[in-house]
Amino acid sequence: MAALDTHVNEGVFHDDFMLQNSWAKRLYHDYAKDMPIVDYHNHLCPKQIAEDHKFESITQLWLEGDHYKWRAMRANGVEEQFITGNASDKDKFIKWASTVPNTLRNPLFHWTHLELKNPFGVGTYLNESNASDIYDHCNEQLKERYSVQQLLSHFKVKVLCTTDDPKDDLSYHIALKSQDFGTKVLPTFRPDCFMTVGNPVQFNAYVDEVSAVAKASVISFEDFKSLIDSRHGFFHEVGCRVSDIGLEQIPAISPNEQSASKAFDKLRKGLILDKNDSDQFIAYVFHFICTLNADRNWVQQWHLGPLRNNNSRLMHEVGADGGFDSISDNGQVHGMSHALNALNLNNKLAKTIAYNLNPALNDAVATMLGNFNEGPTKAKMQYGAAWWFLDQKLGIENQLNTLSNMGLLAHFVGMLTDSRSFVSFSRHDYFRRILCNLLGAEMHSGELPSDEKWVGQLVQDVCYNNAINYFGFDK
Amino acid sequence: MAALDTHVNEGVFHDDFMLQNSWAKRLYHDYAKDMPIVDYHNHLCPKQIAEDHKFESITQLWLEGDHYKWRAMRANGVEEQFITGNASDKDKFIKWASTVPNTLRNPLFHWTHLELKNPFGVGTYLNESNASDIYDHCNEQLKERYSVQQLLSHFKVKVLCTTDDPKDDLSYHIALKSQDFGTKVLPTFRPDCFMTVGNPVQFNAYVDEVSAVAKASVISFEDFKSLIDSRHGFFHEVGCRVSDIGLEQIPAISPNEQSASKAFDKLRKGLILDKNDSDQFIAYVFHFICTLNADRNWVQQWHLGPLRNNNSRLMHEVGADGGFDSISDNGQVHGMSHALNALNLNNKLAKTIAYNLNPALNDAVATMLGNFNEGPTKAKMQYGAAWWFLDQKLGIENQLNTLSNMGLLAHFVGMLTDSRSFVSFSRHDYFRRILCNLLGAEMHSGELPSDEKWVGQLVQDVCYNNAINYFGFDK
Amino acid sequence: MAALDTHVNEGVFHDDFMLQNSWAKRLYHDYAKDMPIVDYHNHLCPKQIAEDHKFESITQLWLEGDHYKWRAMRANGVEEQFITGNASDKDKFIKWASTVPNTLRNPLFHWTHLELKNPFGVGTYLNESNASDIYDHCNEQLKERYSVQQLLSHFKVKVLCTTDDPKDDLSYHIALKSQDFGTKVLPTFRPDCFMTVGNPVQFNAYVDEVSAVAKASVISFEDFKSLIDSRHGFFHEVGCRVSDIGLEQIPAISPNEQSASKAFDKLRKGLILDKNDSDQFIAYVFHFICTLNADRNWVQQWHLGPLRNNNSRLMHEVGADGGFDSISDNGQVHGMSHALNALNLNNKLAKTIAYNLNPALNDAVATMLGNFNEGPTKAKMQYGAAWWFLDQKLGIENQLNTLSNMGLLAHFVGMLTDSRSFVSFSRHDYFRRILCNLLGAEMHSGELPSDEKWVGQLVQDVCYNNAINYFGFDK
Repeated sequence: MAALDTHVNEGVFHDDFMLQNSWAKRLYHDYAKDMPIVDYHNHLCPKQIAEDHKFESITQLWLEGDHYKWRAMRANGVEEQFITGNASDKDKFIKWASTVPNTLRNPLFHWTHLELKNPFGVGTYLNESNASDIYDHCNEQLKERYSVQQLLSHFKVKVLCTTDDPKDDLSYHIALKSQDFGTKVLPTFRPDCFMTVGNPVQFNAYVDEVSAVAKASVISFEDFKSLIDSRHGFFHEVGCRVSDIGLEQIPAISPNEQSASKAFDKLRKGLILDKNDSDQFIAYVFHFICTLNADRNWVQQWHLGPLRNNNSRLMHEVGADGGFDSISDNGQVHGMSHALNALNLNNKLAKTIAYNLNPALNDAVATMLGNFNEGPTKAKMQYGAAWWFLDQKLGIENQLNTLSNMGLLAHFVGMLTDSRSFVSFSRHDYFRRILCNLLGAEMHSGELPSDEKWVGQLVQDVCYNNAINYFGFDK
Repeated sequence: MAALDTHVNEGVFHDDFMLQNSWAKRLYHDYAKDMPIVDYHNHLCPKQIAEDHKFESITQLWLEGDHYKWRAMRANGVEEQFITGNASDKDKFIKWASTVPNTLRNPLFHWTHLELKNPFGVGTYLNESNASDIYDHCNEQLKERYSVQQLLSHFKVKVLCTTDDPKDDLSYHIALKSQDFGTKVLPTFRPDCFMTVGNPVQFNAYVDEVSAVAKASVISFEDFKSLIDSRHGFFHEVGCRVSDIGLEQIPAISPNEQSASKAFDKLRKGLILDKNDSDQFIAYVFHFICTLNADRNWVQQWHLGPLRNNNSRLMHEVGADGGFDSISDNGQVHGMSHALNALNLNNKLAKTIAYNLNPALNDAVATMLGNFNEGPTKAKMQYGAAWWFLDQKLGIENQLNTLSNMGLLAHFVGMLTDSRSFVSFSRHDYFRRILCNLLGAEMHSGELPSDEKWVGQLVQDVCYNNAINYFGFDK
Repeated sequence: MAALDTHVNEGVFHDDFMLQNSWAKRLYHDYAKDMPIVDYHNHLCPKQIAEDHKFESITQLWLEGDHYKWRAMRANGVEEQFITGNASDKDKFIKWASTVPNTLRNPLFHWTHLELKNPFGVGTYLNESNASDIYDHCNEQLKERYSVQQLLSHFKVKVLCTTDDPKDDLSYHIALKSQDFGTKVLPTFRPDCFMTVGNPVQFNAYVDEVSAVAKASVISFEDFKSLIDSRHGFFHEVGCRVSDIGLEQIPAISPNEQSASKAFDKLRKGLILDKNDSDQFIAYVFHFICTLNADRNWVQQWHLGPLRNNNSRLMHEVGADGGFDSISDNGQVHGMSHALNALNLNNKLAKTIAYNLNPALNDAVATMLGNFNEGPTKAKMQYGAAWWFLDQKLGIENQLNTLSNMGLLAHFVGMLTDSRSFVSFSRHDYFRRILCNLLGAEMHSGELPSDEKWVGQLVQDVCYNNAINYFGFDK
């Protein structure tokens, strides 16, 4: 492995990576670095956690399901066979390795080498010529040292919330309750399919599937609501305290049960909804699920703004979530205003974290949330962390700046990975470096007090304490 | 007071605050700092000025009516009783003080301490433990040294434009004409209520109220126009030379008098206008008021983009302007294009300052304005200063950058407070520091000439001279 | 000329202008500076190139047709007579010179002095007092040293693509084939007028004009398509390999030939299309032209987002492209998604460069393009360079940052001038300095490897090699 660590103390790898001044270094090393992780939103596989899966290759850990890397490979001219096709794990890894030198200034360049260094101890830049050595080295480490649970322990993950369909029986979460390896694994209620109405056949099949799991019969809209409630209740019993809803845009109308009920009847008859019916249905079901979140005192997350499935030819080949989703430029705040106000009027507004995918809307979204803060909760309305395309240095800085200017950074619940990979926890480290660098620069310039304890406390709160307190997790 | 000034030469308080290089320091200290202030847009109370009001407590000066602070307190988990409720002045101040340490990176952190330092001479960071001392200290200063007129003199405010409803009798402005304390106080014609048509009952009540003041009778749309014109004329007589209109969005249609007239008749019958009628009415009345501005050679201001009254539950409790307004993500430039073009076609386009609340629209709005510049006026179309949520360092820098890149910074009329507080003039100082820092950095890097007089002239023009010349105020 | 070069080694003029660190300097001087230029999109006049035109005055070279400068002059209060009117060349130049000192922080300040220095060797800041000397000096240089072809050679322009109407007979391009002065001059197919349907009379006159050139008769929609195809084919024969389409917004509908055909029939009858018909027509004709681009293996450019002809009074006086166009705040990505997907489904998606004029859409547009990358082409979908109002330092940095974060900077085809002036090639130099400065800063901070050859290769690829390879031009 000598060849692999020549650069250990240089470039993207050194201990002070991203930390451009002495205050930043102090904040990071003395306050941020050693805090545990609450990863309150990700797409990790509960089965792999419960079964303490061992990956056969870094390709399976790293490249399967990572549409960030897939998009980069397509941009690098790699053919689909080596991306999502049936090429061997090793060949896929080599194609990725040959892409990496062309990712300069893309966050993948940083993430790749942060992840190679931690946990794998690789200190060189990955490229086609060292790909084979690094491939073997990482696979050996995965075999010898890094099962899924070992990875979670390695990264000091205290709490982890997966993302789960209401139809899920949560058997792995239930099994995990009796396992104690230092990480609490909780489900998240993700009811998007209840609001996915473009194709009535698919919608009905989905409703029937959930009905079967719940041993319920769904005829009326009332039945449909009961079904959602019963799954929500079941998730609660298993320990779920967080929900998450993803929409391109919340319809900018007041929720109306009657209209939604009519639209539901049409759907169940297999009719395709027009735009108005579809909006009515989504607005009300969204509202209803949010009231459940309030009733059971959960935290709700709203992920707003993806424009999905744009490339239908390749999607047909590769499947959904294959790298064909991008950022919508629709507005968000009129829909948010209707939804938030309707909930708040009925005292049914749960703690809410809203994330927007289009950074052009940062200020509008953050200030909309601010309209609904209310004591005694600290920062009841949270302006969510930089997400998806935005969780790079600039995107993270933009989110932190908007949040700071429009709200109170001190009460921010901080970073999450939103990832499908068990080594993506390095993004928490990346975030912490960026946060400390930003704060340190302003301590240096005199825009913040040069009071290490004061600012250091904010750092530790944002890195860990706030999430524990906001979600009500045990420390 | 010893305990209050320990940090006087440190942190946010020192003389070179925000000035990161030697050119910046020189520009600020030798050119910007001592320029008087033209505060051409604010919401100060003319009665308090005319009566030379003395505030009993800093709470009344600082926290009453300041929805910036209210939002921060709500985000800090403070209960409404201590924000807008009936808690004592002192208790409210202490709750604010306990919020301040959590405002790191929010402009309130800077403003709070700039205002405590000037005019109150407090040199410590405000927090819960020193709140009581600082409260007493400031109240004493308000009693001994700082009446409203003394504050205006202290801040060297040469001209000040309040914001006034057309129904106002301007008695305080008239009274102020005969007072000479160094500040000229002028009214601003703010006719928004003539375009607020969501509730016909309110609209009609308002029209009747203005009619009563004007001793006019309004039956026809022609009468309505005459009413507006007569109030506009009255304001002119009292010395008003500036109008201001606030809208979420200018309708993107050409103004049409007939359609507006029909909509007016419906309104007067108490009918609720549909979207089309409402747009027709607003577009034309907006156009009509702007022609009055041109006819009387006023400067007009357009404040575009707030989405108001989102939280109806709390608004019902607290009232309008209580911190429940935020940034709309609607587009602006199609409406602006229609409005500007219609005015310009008729040679009725007055000098115009347009402000947008959504910073994502900065470039679109600034370039739209640039289409209508025309000699011999210098920068006839002004891209207005960073406003409301945006008057923080980043927002100010963004506005200055957009204006610089898309127009001529040298002719910018500069900053305004838009505030309801008599100590917010520190925002002019804040703006000047940011401006000098930006220019200084580019002199240092070689992007601007290292010619102090040339750049210093620009600084003084933007800080003071341009506003005097553009508005036609006496120096 | 002694008076003219006092500042040669100072301010905006020195060799390290815009290069803020030693890595930046090394990248620029050792890698970027000497690369030749591929200017793959501009509005230069082929007649002037073919005839090797000599300009009589710098006013004709510099101020005729440059609406950037016109807008600045209007903002400076210059009257139209001295901008686009019948004032003398010298008087116009002096008015421009008197505007320049007020352009601090506007890109015109940099461009003006970069262009005065290279090619004219003027090393002072232009102002009213030295205007006359500089005017004479430049005119002499234009007479003695700088014909159009000499200018192109001076700037090392290897390939240059003009922008040409389908009705053009390309006689100058044909003539240029037999001239060898070091610059290859190619046409670009710009079919916007085929989609400009607001005025049926103009549309029909245009179609008839093109029909006459093509010796074709256009009755049916099929004829219309054939006409476009025949002009496309003719351009191909003359060597054209690039098309360019400009639209405020691509309609967000799937292209439908039948609907377009019906709309065409209405147009030919002189009927004004409603919004729906107009969208149907544009969406399909856009689609059809793009399939031609795919069939002939061209690169296509999409320029999205200008809102044109806003000031109809001045436009009536001055004409189109007179400085009355600005940035639309309409969305772009839904239209792009429909258009890209329809082409891609039929395997008719050509290599595409998309430029957006509203920087608020940078991330949405760049990620939309990324959905359609596909091997074996490297970066088949290109996120185009900062354009028009955006080709200043901040706009260029924003474009580079978006491209870097959302795609692969390493495969970027780089800068273009989009200019009507033969000295605007300095914008390539400007871009290179900004690029090197950005990369150098991150090498310095450790965010990029401190590997000069690796990063230097990227610089040379972005400056020149990528464009050569992507467009398939000979080196």
